[in-house]
Amino acid sequence: MYKYEDDSLMLHTDLYQINMGETYWNDGIHERTAIFDLYFRSMPFNSGYAIFSGLERIVQFIENFKFTDTDIEYLREVGYQDDYLDYLKALRFTGNIRGMKEGELCFNNEPLIRVEAPLIQAQLVETALLNIVNFQTLIATKASRIKQVVRDEIVMEFGTRRAQEMDAAIWGARAAVIGGFDSTSNVRAGKLFGIPISGTHAHSMVQTYDDEYLAFKKYAERHKNCVFLVDTFHTLKSGVPNAIRVAKELGDKINFVGIRLDSGDIAYLSKEARRMLDEAGLEDAKIFASNDLDEETITSLKAQGAKVTAWGVGTKLITAYDQPALGAVYKLVAIEDENGELSDRIKISNNAEKVTTPGKKNVYRIINTKTNKSEGDYITLENEKPNEEERLKMFHPVHTYKMKYIKNFKAVDLHHDIFTNGKLVYTLPGINDIKQFAFDNLDILWEENKRYLNPEEYPVDLSKACWDNKNKKIFEVAERVADAIKDVE
Amino acid sequence: MYKYEDDSLMLHTDLYQINMGETYWNDGIHERTAIFDLYFRSMPFNSGYAIFSGLERIVQFIENFKFTDTDIEYLREVGYQDDYLDYLKALRFTGNIRGMKEGELCFNNEPLIRVEAPLIQAQLVETALLNIVNFQTLIATKASRIKQVVRDEIVMEFGTRRAQEMDAAIWGARAAVIGGFDSTSNVRAGKLFGIPISGTHAHSMVQTYDDEYLAFKKYAERHKNCVFLVDTFHTLKSGVPNAIRVAKELGDKINFVGIRLDSGDIAYLSKEARRMLDEAGLEDAKIFASNDLDEETITSLKAQGAKVTAWGVGTKLITAYDQPALGAVYKLVAIEDENGELSDRIKISNNAEKVTTPGKKNVYRIINTKTNKSEGDYITLENEKPNEEERLKMFHPVHTYKMKYIKNFKAVDLHHDIFTNGKLVYTLPGINDIKQFAFDNLDILWEENKRYLNPEEYPVDLSKACWDNKNKKIFEVAERVADAIKDVE
Repeated sequence: MYKYEDDSLMLHTDLYQINMGETYWNDGIHERTAIFDLYFRSMPFNSGYAIFSGLERIVQFIENFKFTDTDIEYLREVGYQDDYLDYLKALRFTGNIRGMKEGELCFNNEPLIRVEAPLIQAQLVETALLNIVNFQTLIATKASRIKQVVRDEIVMEFGTRRAQEMDAAIWGARAAVIGGFDSTSNVRAGKLFGIPISGTHAHSMVQTYDDEYLAFKKYAERHKNCVFLVDTFHTLKSGVPNAIRVAKELGDKINFVGIRLDSGDIAYLSKEARRMLDEAGLEDAKIFASNDLDEETITSLKAQGAKVTAWGVGTKLITAYDQPALGAVYKLVAIEDENGELSDRIKISNNAEKVTTPGKKNVYRIINTKTNKSEGDYITLENEKPNEEERLKMFHPVHTYKMKYIKNFKAVDLHHDIFTNGKLVYTLPGINDIKQFAFDNLDILWEENKRYLNPEEYPVDLSKACWDNKNKKIFEVAERVADAIKDVE
Repeated sequence: MYKYEDDSLMLHTDLYQINMGETYWNDGIHERTAIFDLYFRSMPFNSGYAIFSGLERIVQFIENFKFTDTDIEYLREVGYQDDYLDYLKALRFTGNIRGMKEGELCFNNEPLIRVEAPLIQAQLVETALLNIVNFQTLIATKASRIKQVVRDEIVMEFGTRRAQEMDAAIWGARAAVIGGFDSTSNVRAGKLFGIPISGTHAHSMVQTYDDEYLAFKKYAERHKNCVFLVDTFHTLKSGVPNAIRVAKELGDKINFVGIRLDSGDIAYLSKEARRMLDEAGLEDAKIFASNDLDEETITSLKAQGAKVTAWGVGTKLITAYDQPALGAVYKLVAIEDENGELSDRIKISNNAEKVTTPGKKNVYRIINTKTNKSEGDYITLENEKPNEEERLKMFHPVHTYKMKYIKNFKAVDLHHDIFTNGKLVYTLPGINDIKQFAFDNLDILWEENKRYLNPEEYPVDLSKACWDNKNKKIFEVAERVADAIKDVE
């Protein structure tokens, strides 16, 4: 499709990664083990939860970690020298990646993925991992929020034409299904990911025949399952009557599924259409609705008693219209020193929420075994594990007076081995399993966490050891910076 | 990369296109010539102008218009029958596409692209064309708006990690350059599209060495052009002093380009950093700034006297954060009847702005030869051309009292032949030519059209014949709908 036969995604990275790699390689520290955490700092859409997505694409990316000939040629053209390029050409991914399963509930300030790899490799995967997780997690989360308000009705992804280019359309369709959607209109997404596809006809078909009744009949000749789009000329005065007429005339020759509303006041039109269909004896006919829907408009339509049985959601989902970017970052938390020991790293900042949490860490979910609800997530240093036999102290990492003890709990490790020493050791689940996993996960949240507006905040805490380690590093670095300044002035 | 060796973009379409195609094929009207206009209804970002982008990707798509074996196999799996699939398998694109050049100024309610093709083909390209144009035009427009406020300074695209998946990152980078950006950080976009790439180092490099001074020195050993990121620990007390120290120590051994600010108050920090650099005799050093910038924040920073010489723009550009979707549509305007004559089509709607303009049409730009500014765009029926020897009446298509006569003008046809009878007849320009074309085009607008907030509206008018034709069709269809209702009741 593109200019090069051997097009790869290895150059799908920010130039500075390749520059930093060169600095490390030149300095001989490029193969020191580095640990990076991938996480986001604030909840998208002010949501009470998010749904992790992107792992399948990450696995594809890492499995193809190899500069092609034209990649190397291009880097030569822009000025990199042979010695470094020879090194890059032979480079393969040899690190460890641990992370969450797709469909896992995730929250701000907890590592979704932990990369432990030779420094240069860890840098070279950063940009692609962020690009993938930022988008797919955003869409899976938005989809889940919409599914929460739709509840047991059907909800379909219709956004390809408004998506931000092609990858967003197909990976977004997949993420939508993970978040709870029933189908997509994108046929290629159906083919590639095994997700259900749906769609009937457009206004143009009615325009083509210039006769709505005829158009519906022609469609029904070949398609047994019929959903007629009824707003090309006039929904209640033309579309619905013509749909009813065709349904009655063809009777058992077709399966008249229902009608689709795509403009006008969906609440009013759906109620009137429902009445007309019922009066015609078509009580089983479904009413599909689309037109700039999202969790807010669907909630409002339902509150007004809209008689919609299936929802088509496009633009607002596929672009995450109300917050089109998730700000996940990828931060160095430890690096091997000259003695081969891991040394923790921190980044301080004027913005308090940008201070990183140093060290190699794990993430546990603390499930109360009496309520089967989660008490929060609990980040520990590598060699800690919450002891399920004792009571666990959990406290807010900033407002530390918010504290509680948990007694009957299980601590579930949220990270799984994905790559070990560069080898894929994880079996990617099928899409239906991922969707079911995401669906089941929602049970451990209280309804208050799942409310789409102003939900209750879910706790993401640090263990005492992890909190102490962070604060020790903060003081260390702040003092060292202060010292360095004296030297300069 | 994906599951199938012969993965193609033919299924990158909404399912209903394939369903409608089947209806037409079954009815024997699938090869009747249909004409569709691709256009958007309202200006993105309330901008006074937009920049058309996406043509190169469209050409790639159309040139590969062919269902692969696995595409056909998939359609069989989901229930399509052999007779129709045999037809699809042999299908190639044989139509005509006319449209704007990339980099052309474009406005709402004018056809950017006109597809004239056998009905089934015209439907099968709809979704991909909309997906491509909607995103790329949105980003080129956003980039141009940002470039307008940046003016003669450097502006760089940094958004890959926040982009909506990979295609958005690379095609967005290309669209940014069309809109006036100088470079991208995405290396693959540089390779594929021949656009300049830029980047230096991240915070992680400073964290790795855990010593800012040492990190800068190590970087400078291999990279002669140095831009140091100065906010890992403390911008003014650590970062800037360390950058100055390395620049002074290494002197002519490196090219100290400057520093980059990535957090904190850019106005204050840039002024202080400028003072410090100047006092150190580094008057030529540049100050780069990034951190959630867009046309509004840049304008505000400039108003405060920020001393920034190069701007890095990420999230807000690459996702078009303030309006992440352009709502371009693709509407049937005419179709061949059983006698082989073109018959115009219209879609009416309760929403007045959704009524389409029927007929095969052209778009002219009316340039006043005295001012060299544009008087507006002028949509005609196919066989009309504005007569440059006579005065031209231009009027607003809704508020018709807004009317003017133009005397000295040239009428520039904005559409070019791209595909004729399925053959590519257009030579795609290089990216630098497109960028220059877009830049030069801005000269025909008044400053009032280019203002980023509340710009003056640019006229997009219909010729009298086109306007009459539209109104005649509106009454025709409205009356026919009224008649049909009597039959049903």
